[in-house]
Amino acid sequence: MPAQHLNIKWLNALNAKRVVLASSSPRRKDILSNLGVNYIVVPSTFPETLDKSLFSHPSEYVKENARQKALEVYERLKTAGDTPDLVIGADTVVAHDSQILEKPNSEQHAINMLASLSGSTHMVYTGITLIAPPSDGTGEPRILIDVEGTEVKMQNLSEELIKAYVETKEPMDKAGAYGYQTTGGLLVKGINGCSWNVIGLPASKLFFMLEQFTRQE
Amino acid sequence: MPAQHLNIKWLNALNAKRVVLASSSPRRKDILSNLGVNYIVVPSTFPETLDKSLFSHPSEYVKENARQKALEVYERLKTAGDTPDLVIGADTVVAHDSQILEKPNSEQHAINMLASLSGSTHMVYTGITLIAPPSDGTGEPRILIDVEGTEVKMQNLSEELIKAYVETKEPMDKAGAYGYQTTGGLLVKGINGCSWNVIGLPASKLFFMLEQFTRQE
Repeated sequence: MPAQHLNIKWLNALNAKRVVLASSSPRRKDILSNLGVNYIVVPSTFPETLDKSLFSHPSEYVKENARQKALEVYERLKTAGDTPDLVIGADTVVAHDSQILEKPNSEQHAINMLASLSGSTHMVYTGITLIAPPSDGTGEPRILIDVEGTEVKMQNLSEELIKAYVETKEPMDKAGAYGYQTTGGLLVKGINGCSWNVIGLPASKLFFMLEQFTRQE
Repeated sequence: MPAQHLNIKWLNALNAKRVVLASSSPRRKDILSNLGVNYIVVPSTFPETLDKSLFSHPSEYVKENARQKALEVYERLKTAGDTPDLVIGADTVVAHDSQILEKPNSEQHAINMLASLSGSTHMVYTGITLIAPPSDGTGEPRILIDVEGTEVKMQNLSEELIKAYVETKEPMDKAGAYGYQTTGGLLVKGINGCSWNVIGLPASKLFFMLEQFTRQE
């Protein structure tokens, strides 16, 4: 958390409202806190079982997942008579050689993923959806959707390093089998784009989306 | 800190020794901890008053600062009869339009720096020096020096946003007047290179430098 929040009119107006983050990821919570946004967490129960083959590109897949996650939380709270002022939904995947990599399902799977990423470049996509009640109180909610892509270049990883990294268990709950914000950061030679996006939320893009969405109201 | 350190032979050997970080920066401490390195902190008293005009490039300037910082700590501990096994020194600057930007000396100075960085691209350089006693116990210490450069592209920053950000006081102890790891991350559109370098230590480069240096011994 920063020592002091940004004193900006639209952000103060947003912080007087009920903002919901539809994700329980500790990394996403940290990033949203750093932006100076006050929020509560209501994790989405959307199952993430969309058929990837129906999407022309990984960026379309994460946008739809982010939309469904945010919508599920918005509708659930609305039905409970507790409509939030804003819901933020996000979804992140790793794309490599036209394959979408999600969380590994075993240590061997994590080793294979990291071996395939070694010495090459992959993309990380995060879809973001903002949902708010309609301005006039009736009809469909207001929705803003965007996506950020970041290129990640991996070091040449030795078998020894991959095995030792997987043994730390860090890869097991991470898309692509590495966590950029902790030990996994050492596996990455460099990135091109927003590095917060690799951790789960593109900080700067989200900030300017929130400004646009709050001012439009 | 990661849940569990990497179980790698050279790293275990390093962690059985006395490693000193010649910097009190909390960001550098976090990054070194994430690499799984055990260390103590002995901040350098090297005054950082080198004449910048004597260096052909900012990368030469930070390399020399890093060398002097590490050397000062190494010699001080050695003189006290307490020679460390390894000293890590680092220095980071922001370079923009052939100018080196260090920490701002007033809020107005910070505002001017951020206004000059707005909408454009600058470089962040971190010099790293590793120093260890000579392998045979006599003569000059072993030294490894390297530098990492990362390109940073800033968003177009409004006067309102710059003023609100400077009011948080976050910029005041940061080279270039922004902290990438917290609120200042929202000012950055994207980077090209190692993002840890922008925070003060290029995690991956340092890890492989430590491996090379430890294996050479």
